[in-house]
Amino acid sequence: MPLITLTTDFGQADWFVGSMKATMLSVSSRLRMVDITHSVPPGDVKAGAFALFASCRYFPSNTIHLVVVDPGVGSSRKPIVVKTSNFCFIGPDNGVLSYALAEEEVESIHSIENASLFVQPVSRTFHGRDLFAPVAAHLAKGLPVTEVGPALSSFIQLDWTKPTSCDRKWLGEVVYIDHFGNAITNLPANLIEDSSPAAREVMLANGTRIPIGHYYQQAGANQPIALVGSTEYLEIAINGGNAAKLLDLKVGAPIVAL
Amino acid sequence: MPLITLTTDFGQADWFVGSMKATMLSVSSRLRMVDITHSVPPGDVKAGAFALFASCRYFPSNTIHLVVVDPGVGSSRKPIVVKTSNFCFIGPDNGVLSYALAEEEVESIHSIENASLFVQPVSRTFHGRDLFAPVAAHLAKGLPVTEVGPALSSFIQLDWTKPTSCDRKWLGEVVYIDHFGNAITNLPANLIEDSSPAAREVMLANGTRIPIGHYYQQAGANQPIALVGSTEYLEIAINGGNAAKLLDLKVGAPIVAL
Amino acid sequence: MPLITLTTDFGQADWFVGSMKATMLSVSSRLRMVDITHSVPPGDVKAGAFALFASCRYFPSNTIHLVVVDPGVGSSRKPIVVKTSNFCFIGPDNGVLSYALAEEEVESIHSIENASLFVQPVSRTFHGRDLFAPVAAHLAKGLPVTEVGPALSSFIQLDWTKPTSCDRKWLGEVVYIDHFGNAITNLPANLIEDSSPAAREVMLANGTRIPIGHYYQQAGANQPIALVGSTEYLEIAINGGNAAKLLDLKVGAPIVAL
Repeated sequence: MPLITLTTDFGQADWFVGSMKATMLSVSSRLRMVDITHSVPPGDVKAGAFALFASCRYFPSNTIHLVVVDPGVGSSRKPIVVKTSNFCFIGPDNGVLSYALAEEEVESIHSIENASLFVQPVSRTFHGRDLFAPVAAHLAKGLPVTEVGPALSSFIQLDWTKPTSCDRKWLGEVVYIDHFGNAITNLPANLIEDSSPAAREVMLANGTRIPIGHYYQQAGANQPIALVGSTEYLEIAINGGNAAKLLDLKVGAPIVAL
Repeated sequence: MPLITLTTDFGQADWFVGSMKATMLSVSSRLRMVDITHSVPPGDVKAGAFALFASCRYFPSNTIHLVVVDPGVGSSRKPIVVKTSNFCFIGPDNGVLSYALAEEEVESIHSIENASLFVQPVSRTFHGRDLFAPVAAHLAKGLPVTEVGPALSSFIQLDWTKPTSCDRKWLGEVVYIDHFGNAITNLPANLIEDSSPAAREVMLANGTRIPIGHYYQQAGANQPIALVGSTEYLEIAINGGNAAKLLDLKVGAPIVAL
Repeated sequence: MPLITLTTDFGQADWFVGSMKATMLSVSSRLRMVDITHSVPPGDVKAGAFALFASCRYFPSNTIHLVVVDPGVGSSRKPIVVKTSNFCFIGPDNGVLSYALAEEEVESIHSIENASLFVQPVSRTFHGRDLFAPVAAHLAKGLPVTEVGPALSSFIQLDWTKPTSCDRKWLGEVVYIDHFGNAITNLPANLIEDSSPAAREVMLANGTRIPIGHYYQQAGANQPIALVGSTEYLEIAINGGNAAKLLDLKVGAPIVAL
């Protein structure tokens, strides 16, 4: 039976994630679930999209990726299932799946409308528990995706800001701040490494220049360093410190590689 | 083998939850466990009781619900097992099981005294690991509940403050603040919806009036709305914001539906 | 198949832990994993070592303990596997395994160098996902430890500050602050209980004296108490409060038992 991963903004302070697992395990007690994260900032569709994008490809083929970052729950936004050649993605059609799907070969898109799959009565505020989770569980158990509802021809795509080049420099921006305070940018490894000449440092908006290196401890203690991180994008770190705090970097901050 | 759920105030910063799972898996490596939450505020028996109440019914029949919010650990408070027609509940007899049990048909209550089931030596401060977890695991493995210790005739019940009516208005209070800052009240859906006339707004202690709607985005951005939440109680939310912070709502704050 | 435990400083805000589980489950979808904690303070090797030490012995024999607190990732520090008579430990050779290993009979130490076991390409910053996790999974699946790389004769050991005695008093220090604010010391139970006369109170650096008792609620509400905690070391607590905050106790603070 395929794995189901969970990515949500429900946090772990309450019973929300446990309730989703409850309704999944009520469909089949043999299901296996893995948490990607439940700490997406509340309603932050882009951060959820990035977390899924950064991790989904490492799971076994046929994994079902369930994502609930759903500020529009109860409104007219559609719940969807997108089948690709590698995986199956389930979530609200608000763009949260779109960064991951940009890397995938999409085979079908379906709107979830088959109410016989839902936990009844369906609450107005918690489709994670009452709709998405049981549908994911039924799909893991083998339900054909065509049974969830009618086919759609497209899904909502979030903009992914691409770096721009200017005078042989690349201008990008911070797209995610992680737990360590590392600031992940949208400057991909190949762009940095294959530039001619290869980029050797980055510049922040305030003019601070930071060398590009290979690993954190290459910088002196508490010194900044830029390096290609595990997402294969350039990130800005401080050896032993929190770069986002100490360099005042936020999502959207401009970064120039030169 | 039945599932075991875990609800504690142990947090996830230390090794406490892992140690409970360790002593369970030492009884049977085939056990399956699901976390409800470990972020009950330290020693907050009412919050733990509410988390269990709000989630336990969604699990498959025969699930064993293990709850350790136990400020009296090591004192004379009794560890108990309560069997109901749907589930089995294990925890300290301090009321933490009582909100959930109020919805259940109780079949038996036993005091946990059979020390042969415990991890020895039993620590004075961590009965979660040394007593509750292994007993839950033995029950999941099929131990009859009569083997854990002598039958009891009652368990401690926490007060659940019921709403009162006055002049066709209902007066309730906030009972839980969730991760999103939504303030869950003790005003049940049927009371709101079946009032004649049905309630159309709520009033806070400072006189602020908030309309009752159906889903979060029905309110304008950063505007408050009251709605029946996934626990089937009225809750107060802000579309895209944290209602508890922005409206200064705490557990116990009075709420009038009118 | 043996269990795999995870102890890291990756936090749960991002996708890091999920990615490690992804690469493990890609080796074998039947693996079972238990989180000890992911909230070791970033790069705090001693705190990680203590969490592992405090919990690892409760897991079933043959459990594989995977620990990634690895501020030197990408530098010359070695990834190692240490087999003991009870368990298998995997992590960076920076001392993070050493408190746990001090309690174990070490059978072999190997350097992880067999790149055919890794996820390719190996990132420079996330050996948890690309190296440690898949190696742990292969070991769980039955790979002989000799296949991971060449044998080593030693591993790095962190200092464990031992209590010193003076005038029939014992001088120790705080080694860990837990989620509840309890301050765990390096004064072991037997030292306290077998002293002649047995210690009856502890003294803080500022002269405050705190009685030694048996359980939290033995102290009055919001009163301090010292007691032997679940790690079998003396800890300082406040009944219903956060001792570390209220008594201003930090790791390294001196504690005298007398």
